[in-house]
Amino acid sequence: MPKHMDFFLSLASTYTYLAVNRAEQLATQADVVLHWRPFSVRTLMIEQNNRPFAGKPVKLAYMWRDLERRAQRHGIAFASVPPYPVDADGLANRVACLAAAEGWCPEFAKASYRGWFLRHGDPGQVENLSRALRGTGREPDEIIARANSSEIHERLRAETDAARDLGIFGSPTFVCGTEVFWGDDRLEEAVEWCTSH
Amino acid sequence: MPKHMDFFLSLASTYTYLAVNRAEQLATQADVVLHWRPFSVRTLMIEQNNRPFAGKPVKLAYMWRDLERRAQRHGIAFASVPPYPVDADGLANRVACLAAAEGWCPEFAKASYRGWFLRHGDPGQVENLSRALRGTGREPDEIIARANSSEIHERLRAETDAARDLGIFGSPTFVCGTEVFWGDDRLEEAVEWCTSH
Repeated sequence: MPKHMDFFLSLASTYTYLAVNRAEQLATQADVVLHWRPFSVRTLMIEQNNRPFAGKPVKLAYMWRDLERRAQRHGIAFASVPPYPVDADGLANRVACLAAAEGWCPEFAKASYRGWFLRHGDPGQVENLSRALRGTGREPDEIIARANSSEIHERLRAETDAARDLGIFGSPTFVCGTEVFWGDDRLEEAVEWCTSH
Repeated sequence: MPKHMDFFLSLASTYTYLAVNRAEQLATQADVVLHWRPFSVRTLMIEQNNRPFAGKPVKLAYMWRDLERRAQRHGIAFASVPPYPVDADGLANRVACLAAAEGWCPEFAKASYRGWFLRHGDPGQVENLSRALRGTGREPDEIIARANSSEIHERLRAETDAARDLGIFGSPTFVCGTEVFWGDDRLEEAVEWCTSH
């Protein structure tokens, strides 16, 4: 029976761009089933007083340079530094949550990140979100209305609760059983752990 | 002519334990000359309002688990979670600064970390510091007196200024020219950069 790995992600996270474009291939190669689980990293960061970049321009500048280098390393497109922060209302993340419930999170997440990183559109703005949705063959108005429903708010809250219970504090995070790996740069390690434990 | 890489380190940093035990071998294999440059990461963290673990118990717990896993991965001894934070006065770090000026920083840094991580002694306490110094064949009283001199305070300040100018905010950090790589987990990438640029 194949192992499975949880991929906790938030669509406004910067390094998650890399993970969204790498995780499937690495998991598939290792015969690991990947569960995409959008959650609100912002909620946990506020609770935990963990603000990795706000008010920290030196660390922020480094993050972008590091992300650019790692994108190049992995053959992932990187145009120039995109707007940040984004998705202030969490709408794109709620769409991802709905998409995960229905099995189309991978394609949506990639489209959302393409718009943000390559066309520099805030993925939470309706115009950009609609473009990403249309790119995956979906009708934006209906999806956005459902992403604003109490059902999806509740589902995202439940996933955020699950992340909190696991000791998660950042995105992306990979979880094998109860073993937590934070960061796109721990993806290989997480997959290895899954297949060897 | 061999390339060279600056290795900025602070002895009270947790992940620097891994780098201190890995950097020489990786650099040597790639024919890269390593310059050990102790600096005060605490000074920069206070200036930049960057407190990675203070008041963040969830992230702190993860850090120790991650560090333990990575120590195992690299064949580096890890007993159990050592005391933290340590070296409140920066004395061990000033000894490292003096040691770097005289060319014995690698052996001292390793001895200091062994005492901290494997015997759980605060490396800044005179008893533990003395043990580390004696282990490298040095007379503690004389070294500690010199580490408290204005000359070494000034040297450490100058190295911290150099780190600030490079955009450094954490330890360990590797620098090739002006290209900055933060974290033990970027060591391989930094060495590759040095040899290919």
